[in-house]
Amino acid sequence: MKKSVEEYVRSIPDFPEPGIIFRDITSVLQDADGLQMAIDEMQALIDSDKVDVIAGTESRGFIFGAPIAYNLHKPFVLIRKKGKLPCETVSRSYDLEYGTAEIEMHKDAIKPGQRVVVIDDLLATGGTLEACDKLIEELGGVVAKNVFLIELAGLKGREKLKDYEVASVICYEGK
Amino acid sequence: MKKSVEEYVRSIPDFPEPGIIFRDITSVLQDADGLQMAIDEMQALIDSDKVDVIAGTESRGFIFGAPIAYNLHKPFVLIRKKGKLPCETVSRSYDLEYGTAEIEMHKDAIKPGQRVVVIDDLLATGGTLEACDKLIEELGGVVAKNVFLIELAGLKGREKLKDYEVASVICYEGK
Repeated sequence: MKKSVEEYVRSIPDFPEPGIIFRDITSVLQDADGLQMAIDEMQALIDSDKVDVIAGTESRGFIFGAPIAYNLHKPFVLIRKKGKLPCETVSRSYDLEYGTAEIEMHKDAIKPGQRVVVIDDLLATGGTLEACDKLIEELGGVVAKNVFLIELAGLKGREKLKDYEVASVICYEGK
Repeated sequence: MKKSVEEYVRSIPDFPEPGIIFRDITSVLQDADGLQMAIDEMQALIDSDKVDVIAGTESRGFIFGAPIAYNLHKPFVLIRKKGKLPCETVSRSYDLEYGTAEIEMHKDAIKPGQRVVVIDDLLATGGTLEACDKLIEELGGVVAKNVFLIELAGLKGREKLKDYEVASVICYEGK
């Protein structure tokens, strides 16, 4: 019987700390069938006719975002950690468990009115993706959807992203 | 007339310092045709029958490596910066202009004898890729080829990688 994409995810109990189950996607990627299913199932959540641009978050969003952009023949835009993009940027900070982080996009990455799908591997608290979505809006773009391979429902990322559409391939109830 | 992939590269003179021309690939990615040409032309440098695994270097190697692995139906393996992979790893340091950096792979990423193509966006001095190639060999893999979108010939990366096969889509004479 054909495996489901979920069966390729390696779950590591008590990592990085007791009580947390780490969901490792490298085991999905390093199986040709797992990689194909992950990309195909994420892509199936996107209505290509209603999307102008695919955006990926550094760095695991790049892994899923680039093949989807290629397959749908859309531009692929990078949302990077601060200081890595060479041209004029806009940036946005967001809170982490300890401290803050900052993401950046090129100012010319999105044209006003373009509909953008944001791709990341995992939806946890949603803090990073909320910053991404607001940055896209700051550039005049419209966030069409946020698409994830994995969602950790117990961390309530969907509540944080309540103003946006969210879809995921695999949903775990816990954290 | 159809543009060449080189025409999508944005060249930024005197960045990050005077005399250096920075080759920006985001302008390639954020054009659907540019993205497609870049992937297709890198992929054309690979003999799929002689390759078992595609490896990508964090983080821009992920952008090109993942679609190529998907298209060729191969496993995709991550070469990451230190401390980001959750399972047992091997690591290797290499020299930067100032200081050193360290890359890691999961121990189970490559099986002995597997033939690996390493994908990165840009070949400069070759220091990072030499470390990648040696790490793959440490895991028992065979480096089939290193494939780049861009090569800066003046930085002599091919000399550093003289024990390996190297191919690039675009070659600039300078640095």
